[in-house]
Amino acid sequence: MLPGQNKISNKDLDPGVKKLYLNLPLPSLKDNTGDIDRLRRALQAGQGLKSVRIPYGLIGFSSRVMREASFQVTATVVREGEEWELLDISPGDTTKEFFGLALDLGTTRMVGTLVDLRTGEVLSEHSMDNPQIRYGADILTRIHYAHDPNGLKELTAAVREGIGKMVAQLAAKAGVQTGSIYSMTVAGNTAMTHFFMGLDPSSIPREPYIPLVNRPDPVPAGELEIPIHPQARVFIFPNVGSYFGGDLIAGLLASGLARRNEVSILVDVGTNAEVVLGNSDWLMACAGAAGPALEGGVAQMGMTAGDGAIDRVSLDRNTLRPVYSVIGRVAPLGICGSGLIDLAAELFSVGLLDRRGKLVPERDPSRFKETTSGLAYILVPGQETGRGEDMVLTQIDVDIFLRSKAAMYTILTTIIDSVGLRFQDLAHFYVAGTFGNYIAPVKAITLGMLPDLPLERYVPLGNSSLTGALQVLCNFSLREEAWCLCDRITYIEMNVNTEFMQRFSAACFLPHTDRSLFPSVSVP
Amino acid sequence: MLPGQNKISNKDLDPGVKKLYLNLPLPSLKDNTGDIDRLRRALQAGQGLKSVRIPYGLIGFSSRVMREASFQVTATVVREGEEWELLDISPGDTTKEFFGLALDLGTTRMVGTLVDLRTGEVLSEHSMDNPQIRYGADILTRIHYAHDPNGLKELTAAVREGIGKMVAQLAAKAGVQTGSIYSMTVAGNTAMTHFFMGLDPSSIPREPYIPLVNRPDPVPAGELEIPIHPQARVFIFPNVGSYFGGDLIAGLLASGLARRNEVSILVDVGTNAEVVLGNSDWLMACAGAAGPALEGGVAQMGMTAGDGAIDRVSLDRNTLRPVYSVIGRVAPLGICGSGLIDLAAELFSVGLLDRRGKLVPERDPSRFKETTSGLAYILVPGQETGRGEDMVLTQIDVDIFLRSKAAMYTILTTIIDSVGLRFQDLAHFYVAGTFGNYIAPVKAITLGMLPDLPLERYVPLGNSSLTGALQVLCNFSLREEAWCLCDRITYIEMNVNTEFMQRFSAACFLPHTDRSLFPSVSVP
Repeated sequence: MLPGQNKISNKDLDPGVKKLYLNLPLPSLKDNTGDIDRLRRALQAGQGLKSVRIPYGLIGFSSRVMREASFQVTATVVREGEEWELLDISPGDTTKEFFGLALDLGTTRMVGTLVDLRTGEVLSEHSMDNPQIRYGADILTRIHYAHDPNGLKELTAAVREGIGKMVAQLAAKAGVQTGSIYSMTVAGNTAMTHFFMGLDPSSIPREPYIPLVNRPDPVPAGELEIPIHPQARVFIFPNVGSYFGGDLIAGLLASGLARRNEVSILVDVGTNAEVVLGNSDWLMACAGAAGPALEGGVAQMGMTAGDGAIDRVSLDRNTLRPVYSVIGRVAPLGICGSGLIDLAAELFSVGLLDRRGKLVPERDPSRFKETTSGLAYILVPGQETGRGEDMVLTQIDVDIFLRSKAAMYTILTTIIDSVGLRFQDLAHFYVAGTFGNYIAPVKAITLGMLPDLPLERYVPLGNSSLTGALQVLCNFSLREEAWCLCDRITYIEMNVNTEFMQRFSAACFLPHTDRSLFPSVSVP
Repeated sequence: MLPGQNKISNKDLDPGVKKLYLNLPLPSLKDNTGDIDRLRRALQAGQGLKSVRIPYGLIGFSSRVMREASFQVTATVVREGEEWELLDISPGDTTKEFFGLALDLGTTRMVGTLVDLRTGEVLSEHSMDNPQIRYGADILTRIHYAHDPNGLKELTAAVREGIGKMVAQLAAKAGVQTGSIYSMTVAGNTAMTHFFMGLDPSSIPREPYIPLVNRPDPVPAGELEIPIHPQARVFIFPNVGSYFGGDLIAGLLASGLARRNEVSILVDVGTNAEVVLGNSDWLMACAGAAGPALEGGVAQMGMTAGDGAIDRVSLDRNTLRPVYSVIGRVAPLGICGSGLIDLAAELFSVGLLDRRGKLVPERDPSRFKETTSGLAYILVPGQETGRGEDMVLTQIDVDIFLRSKAAMYTILTTIIDSVGLRFQDLAHFYVAGTFGNYIAPVKAITLGMLPDLPLERYVPLGNSSLTGALQVLCNFSLREEAWCLCDRITYIEMNVNTEFMQRFSAACFLPHTDRSLFPSVSVP
């Protein structure tokens, strides 16, 4: 999403918060309603709001503002269930200053968009690292750190501080006041949601895997120390459980999968692979450790998608020379998940990697060398890199990667088997996250990571968590839909039993021991 | 009301707050709902509450309490419109500690009752002077003082401090913890309501007489600095306007006048006379200065009803000697409103006061003397009093008193005339307040202060503000009725025009210039 894009049609725009200019009748002997009652009457009878609550703390202030502004004021009201509550009041007409913020609160990256709530237009977008990274790249390390004295406080402070910077950046880019941001939605996984709310995450990774809360009610921003309007309600996406968080619900909402009759699947791959299968009738979900290898986090030269990352690789079928593209048009610094998948698929296609996943140096000895980690394929010689040393893919990297891709395929097989369907029955195969944006499904199929479906059934969703957060920001009724999704999902625990291990072992081959599952893949 | 009395039937008991013991299913792999979601499920599905909001600030605390108490907890929830909100949670079963407080917040006296919300039983009652009295006995003096720097703060602190003592007394008498008081209702006049809420009252007595707020939403006790449970909601009775406050609405509610088909009238006499006329179809109201004389506040020997006050007087028809009763069985210190009315009526009946309101010393010269305030009737010689000086009623006292009674009758005439009815059409004549409890209607009729109706139509209501507050405390649906009453009432400004002054002058006679209006009164 870029500024100006993704404008929500005004018809669908209903953010659950309103900014209303009121030209109130002046008090007189004929109309001696109290100030606050006058305000409420204008909002209820005048503007058609069913019931408006005026918080105690705003009574004196509202009266002063009304009287000083000759009863020409702008009231901001927020919906709470079927009722409305006065959120703020200002003199004159300030209805133009009316903004909302949607945030994808990732473990690694945070991405936010600032929206004009009058039009649904995106005014600015910003992304940054999650400042919690300094306490640990992965979420389990951070959950562990939360046990330390003050550990949770530090982690909460870190993420809130990051969001504070995000708010400032978004507002500065769009040239608006942060105090005029009256609504916010946040999509994050279960642990991130707990950190953000300052809640103890320690029960999340421990059997029986019970979060403190799956469905928090909207919270005033001030209580979360978010520097937007302190009374702005922050909608936090609900979690299904410890391993299926609000980011997934946001993505599921954005995909529309749960609204359609035909059966589809949605896969979000990060450190975990999270999968939802179903349609408007039923929804199954599971999550399993697919390993960070798929994000490029394990290979020696691995890095997350960003400037300097090789995101596309192909090997010339004659010379076997690699051709690659680098994000940001700079010298390559590493390889990201999509690059790694491309590379592995290409190595396999040209015979530099065999069906068992072993490198085959004999095919092109000049590109191989022995390293302290064993045999390695040289993707980029040192002089071409931004680091000065060869970028290599070792046999160990390959082994780890193949276990990740096998886990991915096994999870997919398990969930589709559990409902007695076949992959061919899927109308769409949604791939969410950065992964979904960059991955070439044909390469993933070649590796036996994703099922051998017609390519047009693969739909990349991009940052679907952010899209879902944006949709809910602009449409109040989708909150109810998000909560309903949580209730509708049947979560399957991925038991690592004998059957799972057999499937996993078969999937460790390229593309699979059962070649009939991948008819489109030609094995060298 | 005394402890043990006024028990509300359990059928009608619905205080809008519930304390529920929950034996929650333990978390397991089969039931891995989050802690807070588990709690909400038990309250919604298990207890049938429509929708339960769990405030952000209670998430972490609730989770700890649930886990430490093996998921056997007591949840307190409060109704907000159609929804419920978690107010507190405690380990084990604490449903027996569940109390509410009803408060009559008078300008002069505060009376409170503590109620067991499980049964509706009154556990204790307490009354005390309003500590604001040190800033002025009458409300206008206090409103004026509120203009001073910190004046409003001091006045608010004074009344809250008084309520704090009230809470402590009530709880101590009943042997309960103040933190187990989960609901409170407050009936006070418009200015007292503003002082209590810390709101500027300066617009109340100034044309066009606009209060800051007539209908405040319920406020958490903590925000009002009332030392009961800080999240207990305080329901503050709504006002109709500057001169018709929540105390009257509470009284009107208690009378049931507005629910019946037949037309009745309700009169509350304090410094102002406040009158409501109507039935289930229509309601008219007015208020006017009847003068503090009727409360015993002006006569030289006047005092409010309390220990030492003469509340009943009769004159022996042969000897003309006064016979009186004193509140508290002590030597008399003064005379209260009902005593003054008795005295004036008796003086008139035996011919010591003539139709023009002039004392007639010739009838019993031994009881009269000249004072610095002119001619005076000696009610109690000095040696019989608790003060050591004669208790006297001067001609000036009589003049002031007669103006008050004339104002009272004129107000009644004006409002009944305005709807084209006669006093004879009234089914009931409710008399509220201390006044209503002590006054002998036959004496007030003799004076021409109240209309000449069959005595059985006069119904004393006692402290109807407190009764109304108690009813609303025990029955949530009456809040809506109280708000509706405000909307239903048509308030008539009492214009002091020529017609009013003519009526007033006629009513200054005893009982009236038009004797046909008082056929039951025999004039000596």
